[in-house]
Amino acid sequence: MDQFERLSQLPLRDDLRGQHPYGAPQLDVPILLNVNENTFGLPLDAKEAILKAVADELDGLNRYPDREFTELRRALAAYLGHGLTDANIWAANGSNEVLQQLLQAFGGPGRSAMGFPPTYSMYPLLASGTGTAYVAGVRGDDYGLTAESAAQQVRAQAPNVVFLCSPNNPTGTALGLDVVEAVYDAGEASQAIVIVDEAYAEFAHAGTGSALTLLEGRPRLVVSRTMSKAFALAGARVGYLASAPEVTDAIRLVRLPYHLSAITQATAVAALRNSDALLANVEAIKVQRDRIVAELEQMGLRPAPSDSNFVFFGGLEDPVSVWEKLLADGVLIRDVGISGHLRVTAGTEAETGAFLDGLRSILAK
Amino acid sequence: MDQFERLSQLPLRDDLRGQHPYGAPQLDVPILLNVNENTFGLPLDAKEAILKAVADELDGLNRYPDREFTELRRALAAYLGHGLTDANIWAANGSNEVLQQLLQAFGGPGRSAMGFPPTYSMYPLLASGTGTAYVAGVRGDDYGLTAESAAQQVRAQAPNVVFLCSPNNPTGTALGLDVVEAVYDAGEASQAIVIVDEAYAEFAHAGTGSALTLLEGRPRLVVSRTMSKAFALAGARVGYLASAPEVTDAIRLVRLPYHLSAITQATAVAALRNSDALLANVEAIKVQRDRIVAELEQMGLRPAPSDSNFVFFGGLEDPVSVWEKLLADGVLIRDVGISGHLRVTAGTEAETGAFLDGLRSILAK
Repeated sequence: MDQFERLSQLPLRDDLRGQHPYGAPQLDVPILLNVNENTFGLPLDAKEAILKAVADELDGLNRYPDREFTELRRALAAYLGHGLTDANIWAANGSNEVLQQLLQAFGGPGRSAMGFPPTYSMYPLLASGTGTAYVAGVRGDDYGLTAESAAQQVRAQAPNVVFLCSPNNPTGTALGLDVVEAVYDAGEASQAIVIVDEAYAEFAHAGTGSALTLLEGRPRLVVSRTMSKAFALAGARVGYLASAPEVTDAIRLVRLPYHLSAITQATAVAALRNSDALLANVEAIKVQRDRIVAELEQMGLRPAPSDSNFVFFGGLEDPVSVWEKLLADGVLIRDVGISGHLRVTAGTEAETGAFLDGLRSILAK
Repeated sequence: MDQFERLSQLPLRDDLRGQHPYGAPQLDVPILLNVNENTFGLPLDAKEAILKAVADELDGLNRYPDREFTELRRALAAYLGHGLTDANIWAANGSNEVLQQLLQAFGGPGRSAMGFPPTYSMYPLLASGTGTAYVAGVRGDDYGLTAESAAQQVRAQAPNVVFLCSPNNPTGTALGLDVVEAVYDAGEASQAIVIVDEAYAEFAHAGTGSALTLLEGRPRLVVSRTMSKAFALAGARVGYLASAPEVTDAIRLVRLPYHLSAITQATAVAALRNSDALLANVEAIKVQRDRIVAELEQMGLRPAPSDSNFVFFGGLEDPVSVWEKLLADGVLIRDVGISGHLRVTAGTEAETGAFLDGLRSILAK
């Protein structure tokens, strides 16, 4: 009896039977452009600040951490601006945990959450893990989503929670704030919590608005963010949200006590105090992102407009083969399972060049 | 409109309405004996090893951590012994998250979890947060639980998950392994996952058995542990379990990807490599624990037998007043809400002495 058969004999929840764990392959390859990490390492100053902050926690590591992580919430509020204070902030071990906590408070059995695929593939899994029904909305042919269409769908489905991913993963394109406003208003009838997932917001083009500007007067609106991308801290697992204070009070009813370690709190606070240094690479990444879009167009491919640190592109006859050949060249990108398309993270100039050269050579053959 | 009223206007799940967040008061008091922390700080060697391990992670902190935390699982298996390997181990941010993941996999809507109060007060909250019905079993008058009674109740209730806390929190007393065996057999009909929560196992008296010895041949049995107590790492948030490999495969279907940060993994591995130093204080704590039991008996109180790092004691006419007077003396212990009883953590010799002297003086008045 193999491990899969043994698993099938356990009293697993019925809806989990036959499922496979979520996750991109973790392969040992020279150039990793598959999971939208910030491929620039941390600046030396930031590393030193983090190490100093961790060292300061060691004497008290036998104690439970501050359950309210007040210093971290203050630092995140100061970073976001927009008049936010620590009362508007919540954080957890990655934005996945923030989203899971929101579903535990506002979703759950007998309730529904709506997303607009192709979008972040964790939304249905988070819904499943919290017993929340998942409703898949539809996008236009170009993977776009208009205010009118989104609002109409939300009115029709009356979900309890709506996920708007902006910039959207895997397409990379930001939503207009008119979409957020329209969905919020359309969610009035079902009292929907509207979550705008802005994991990649720092990479947006100048002039792209953040839903943070819409929070005032909208108690059902939540903006989630992460330190994994712009802050280059994927390994530290810090996601957070901004909302009306009562949303954070709701989460306090479902959060696991002491969910954020003292070391995670200290690491994040130190990073936020060095945000200038950490965010310095964001501009360099945007240059590479725009370069990818331009060069892919020159190759006759169809990159989607990107406000993120990655580019989703179509026009491939055999994306699996292209993905495999790039991997053989030592470049790992992402097959997101959409016909004719692949997704690539904007890396350093050298990494981006290796990807573009490799792809050009593969397509030429 | 105050914050509570604003919260009540949000579309919160019905079963959360009117609830209050879980958590003991986090007060700034000289002597903290309220949450069963290891009040001995980390030994210098361990601190140095942890800091070195964290420093080694900084260069790669822009990357997602090892989703499988293989090195940590190996180190935990080696620590536990009993022929376990990394395939038998799972870990998360505190044992609360481990338990939540187990409920997500094996509980959830339409399913039930059973505990035997007074026991760890997070069990019903974890059940609520995962949409799992919670069934409260009963204990004997002395808060004991016999194999016969536990098995009969499990047969009658047919829960999908059973929590057996041993040593039990808040009473401190370990269960006989006969109880675990009987409950496991009684759970055969409902295919119950039986979780033995051994958070305090390292403090047990010599001769008290661990359910780790029962894992072989019992695929529905899970033993959960933590590094918060014996390892003095409450601030680092590392809980774990040992089970048949297929249980860990089930959890992989519900865990949030990359739930354990690279720094948490490195911290825990470094601590496990220094387990001799970290565990050296366990014996000192057991001495203080036994001292508390002996001296409370001399004061005419009724301490429960303790295999943990805390003592639950009855015989108080007015526990709230005693708790308040101790707090005024700078000693914080725990009122667990059980008539006539309080709970105190065994601290250092000095901390324990301050508690006992303070209590003696309060009772003399």
